[in-house]
Order: sequence, then structure tokens, then C-alpha cells
Amino acid sequence: MNVNIQTGIETPQFDGMSCPVPLRDFNEIVMGHGGGGKLTAELIEHLFLPAFGNEKLNQLRDSTILDIGDQRLAFSTDSFVVRPLFFLGGNIGDLAINGTVNDLAMSGAKPLYLSAAFIIEEGLPMETLHAIVKSMSLAARRAGVQIVTGDTKVVERGHGDGCFINTTGIGVVQPGLRIAADQASPGDVVILSGTIGDHGMAIMSVREGFEFESLIFSDSAPLHELVEKMLAACPDIRTLRDPTRGGVATSLNEIAAASNVGIEIDETTIPINPCVQSACELLGLDPLFVANEGKLLAIVPSTAAEAIIAAMHQHEFGTNARIIGRVVDTRRKMVIAKTAFGSTRVITMQIGEQLPRIC
Amino acid sequence: MNVNIQTGIETPQFDGMSCPVPLRDFNEIVMGHGGGGKLTAELIEHLFLPAFGNEKLNQLRDSTILDIGDQRLAFSTDSFVVRPLFFLGGNIGDLAINGTVNDLAMSGAKPLYLSAAFIIEEGLPMETLHAIVKSMSLAARRAGVQIVTGDTKVVERGHGDGCFINTTGIGVVQPGLRIAADQASPGDVVILSGTIGDHGMAIMSVREGFEFESLIFSDSAPLHELVEKMLAACPDIRTLRDPTRGGVATSLNEIAAASNVGIEIDETTIPINPCVQSACELLGLDPLFVANEGKLLAIVPSTAAEAIIAAMHQHEFGTNARIIGRVVDTRRKMVIAKTAFGSTRVITMQIGEQLPRIC
Repeated sequence: MNVNIQTGIETPQFDGMSCPVPLRDFNEIVMGHGGGGKLTAELIEHLFLPAFGNEKLNQLRDSTILDIGDQRLAFSTDSFVVRPLFFLGGNIGDLAINGTVNDLAMSGAKPLYLSAAFIIEEGLPMETLHAIVKSMSLAARRAGVQIVTGDTKVVERGHGDGCFINTTGIGVVQPGLRIAADQASPGDVVILSGTIGDHGMAIMSVREGFEFESLIFSDSAPLHELVEKMLAACPDIRTLRDPTRGGVATSLNEIAAASNVGIEIDETTIPINPCVQSACELLGLDPLFVANEGKLLAIVPSTAAEAIIAAMHQHEFGTNARIIGRVVDTRRKMVIAKTAFGSTRVITMQIGEQLPRIC
Repeated sequence: MNVNIQTGIETPQFDGMSCPVPLRDFNEIVMGHGGGGKLTAELIEHLFLPAFGNEKLNQLRDSTILDIGDQRLAFSTDSFVVRPLFFLGGNIGDLAINGTVNDLAMSGAKPLYLSAAFIIEEGLPMETLHAIVKSMSLAARRAGVQIVTGDTKVVERGHGDGCFINTTGIGVVQPGLRIAADQASPGDVVILSGTIGDHGMAIMSVREGFEFESLIFSDSAPLHELVEKMLAACPDIRTLRDPTRGGVATSLNEIAAASNVGIEIDETTIPINPCVQSACELLGLDPLFVANEGKLLAIVPSTAAEAIIAAMHQHEFGTNARIIGRVVDTRRKMVIAKTAFGSTRVITMQIGEQLPRIC
């Protein structure tokens, strides 16, 4: 790498570097690279994995499992850039806690410790930061996790956007659990814990200034207790995913690909808040692709489904839990939906970004 | 919190919140809050600790120590916002690896696993991201750590600054080590591993377009092997600190305060690259406050100093290691320097920011 010492302009040297497949011919980062869809997947596959790749990272789990001494630890990181910082049902602060708590929970881990790192734009009102931090504190207490280490950086006005937060978490995983995206088998059923699209549409309605008959609230919530109840009912859960960026559609596609199975869902069984449905129709969005922040998808053995759903119904975040589909051995790596009209459609992964900066 | 659903303007509610001491009457975040000096300390003390405070966070260590099962783990987070992204001797990528590796090493930990989370500004050239990622990969390999989990977010043009990176790390700490800022005792000596100010002035010379007789290179380097050699010579090291933001002066002040001791240093013993010295004079900067990214300060028992320094001299990053001062029981919580002119001066913590966005 050469730097012109007079101008500060850098000229990186790329000798010996290679980019195995062109990243859809983009020569610069576009918003879709952060959308959690195909462009993000390509960036990971063609840029990050070749550079960092190792057995653990290659699994591309929401949280990775580390064996340290006699402990199995889950470890997960997430940066939050949601805009606006405050919305109905939450703000960037509790989202940053719940998001990482949920990533840990999706490995079946009990979340224990979080780090919190702030990148703050010069000029952020102190009371705004105070409100964010207070929310984080309450969310951490609710989730039973401790924020044990942190970092604060400040960037000049116009070089950030109010406040970005990274949280990285550590949890412990009980021996014997093997919850991962590649564990789904034909015959398993797909459970969804509740209504879809609430978080994404809560953000959009604030951002776009929509007025609906009733307000749309984000579903931001910590899911580890719900997972605990599910595991108590059946420790043999195959896969757990919280369908955030990219929504239910993206999570199911990732599971279908990782497990090399087909997934069939019945759209009529998927619960959705009528307001969210209206907002999606207004904006031309498919709710299956809209982000959730307090919902989970579970792939479970069909024999255990009833017991797991009964356990979920006992928990405040699982009252609407139900079976929405099943895993099949046809049309592998594809997700097929039976629509309300009785037809079927292929649910693909979105390429770019439907709703930027949703989390 | 109320959000005006039409405008998206939020009105946080502050009922029941309190800010124990006014943050120097700043009602908004200023650059100095990210400078690592007194303003950062006040933000931590008056905003973060009251909200998040717990026994571990309250220790304010570079990395916190977690007891999980039979394991003692070090856990540390750092976001990197250095500008420009590339400079002589490194770039944001290797800095992000070495920075967190060093924070772990300063607890005496062997660094094992890192997370990497990117906040990328729309429009960043793909080859720039590629160069950064490649550097991270090389730095991780050199430091013997694995990047095991990650995250990518993209923000719109003008809402970020090229690329911000958070790394969070896990390391293991051998039983029996008690390395912390509050362990310094009168009679101990202060060791510095090498020249000061290289990183900060490397950044400034690129940023300001200075030309000196020779170029100034950042000292960005992983220090965990050096620490390993030091611990092999004497496991009874009291304190380790890598003097990054705020430099040697800030680290020594933090140690003096945490251990309730005085620290006396002899400025004539502190090694400094002549180019760095010239650059500091030109800019009116005190090199004691300039950031380092590959140096450490150690407080050690005087009886072990010789053995530790001999061990440091065996390692490429410790060839200039030497004693620069001692811990005393007078003028507690203060750092006093004997100058080249034979006079003494008090080395205080800086209040705000000398060199913004240095790491």
C-alpha cells in the first residue's frame, strides 16, 4: 500500500489478491450489500470468507460455537445503524441488546455477557444518548445479561449518523444441543412464534410519516426465555432463526440451502397484524421479506411439534406460535409457498435491500 | 418515548432519569468525548456506569475478566474509526485486529477468537474493502487469532465515513494472574516497551500532508507474544497498559488513580523517534499524549525488572524496552515527570481531544 504523503491519498496494492467471483460487477459498495439478502451473502462468500475463512466462520451461524476448556460458548456480534434512532416499540438501544441476545439464543445458548461499543456523531444531544443508554440498561436487565466492557468513539458532524452501536455477546450452550441451519430433515415441521413484519413496518411508518388506523409497534424482544421453554419441551430442536433483515423468506431460504432440503409453507397460516398487512400493501412490500426483531422460526421433529408449541403458548412472546410449513425432500434448496388463492409460488431470497437500515 | 408518527421526530421522556454530575455542561457530544481523556472518562463515569454499572464494568479494564465454568476469559471490544483508512505502517484493518489483540494481552490473556463487524458507507470502492479485509486476514494470522463471527451494515453516502470496524475478542487467562490497573504499589518500577508517539504522528503526517526527512510509520503491532515472554520471566506483573488514545500520560494517570499511588517518570529515559519529536514540536503536541498502537507500559516489582526487560529485549517489539519511572507513595493519583532541564512537571490527563480519530 502506498500513501502519497503530501495528499494523504492512498493507493492500495492488490498484488496477490484475488476476488474469486465478481461481486455482481459492483465496483463499489451499494446499500443492498447491507440488506441481508443475496448481495450480503455474495459479499460474505466472495470477500470475507476467502480472507477470514475458518471452520467456525464458514458455518455462517447467527452465533458461532466455541469450545474453550470444558465450556461450549456461543459468540455473536451485531452492529446497529437503525434510522430513526427512536420508533414505536423501541429504539436503537434496546434493539442492540435484544438483537444480540436473540442471536445467542438461536444457538440454544443462555446469554450471559455483552460488550457495547458506540460510534457517536459529534452534536448528538446528550439527552438522546442518555435515553438510548437507559433503554439498553433496562433491556439488559430484562434479558438477564450484563454489559461488561465497552468503547466510545466520536466522529465529526456529517461523518456518522447520530449513533451506531455494536453489541457482541457471549452465552453458554448446554452439552448435547446441535441447533444449526444445516440440521433440518425432510419430515420436520416449521414453527413460527408470532406475527410477521411488525418491526420493519414500525420503522417504515415512522420514517415515511404514515398514519394508519392503529399504530404499528416494533416487536423488539428478547427470545432466550422462549427458547429455554422450547428446549425444555424438546431438546432435539433442529434449527432456530430470528428472521431479522430479509425476513422469514430469507431465513427459510438459508435453512433450505444449508440443510439441502425443500421447505413448503402455507401462507394462510402465517399470522400478520392487519395494520402491518395494510402498510405492506401500500408500499408494495411482501411481508415475508420484512424484518422482525422478536420472532423466531424453529425447525423441529414433527413428533415434538405439539409439545413445543404448547410450551411456546405459555410464554408472552410465543402466544401466536403455530406450524406454518414442513421440510420436504423435493425441490431442494427452495422455499415454496401455498398462497391464499390456492396457488403456489417460489419464495426466493431478495437480491438487494427492501428496507434500508432497519436494524 | 413519544414519536410523532407524521414527522418521525422523537421526543424521548426523561422521567426518572438522572445525570449525577453535569457532563461539564455539554448538552451535546463533542469530539473530545471520544478522545480517551477526561471527557471520555466523564462520559463513562456519569452516563455509562450509572446505567450499566456492575462489578466487572466498574473495573474499567482494557478487557474484562469473566469466570465461566472453570475458565477465566478476557473479553474486550473496540470500534475503529481511524481517518484516513490507510497510512504508513498500517490501515484500519490491521489496526482493528492488533488493537483488540492488545487489549486482551493487557490482561495477560492469550487472544483466541475475534468478531468483526463492519459499518460501510455506500460508495466505498470494493477494492478498498478488499485491501482492508486482506490486511485483517494477515494481521489475524500473525496474531494467531481466528475471526469466527461477523456482521456487515451499509449506511447511505454521507452518513458514515468509508468504513468503521468493530472487533471484539475473547482470550484465556492463566490462573493466578492478577494484572490490573489497581495493582501498582510503591516501590514498583515503570517499564516502557519502546518509542512513543509513532502511530499518532504517522496518522497526522498523512492527514496534514507533512514531509519530514524520513517517513513516520505507525507502530501498529500485536503485543501478546511480548507479554507472554514477560510473564514467563515474572508472572507477578502488576499492571499492563497499551497507551493508545491519550498516550503514555493518560495510561499512567489512570494507573496512578486506580492504584492510589504516585508515579514519577524521567522524561530523558523515554525513547522517541527524532522524526516524531520534530513533528510533535511542529504541531505543538506533547508526545506523552500521542497515541501508540504497538507499545506497552508495565508496572512490575523492582526485583523482577531486570529479568523482564531482558526477556523483552529478546522480542522484536521490545528491543527498546527500559525503565522510565517508579511508583511512589507521595503525591498519590498524580504523575510527575523529571524534564530534560532537570525541573519537574505534573503530567495531567488531557481534557478533550488532541488528535481526533486516531484509531
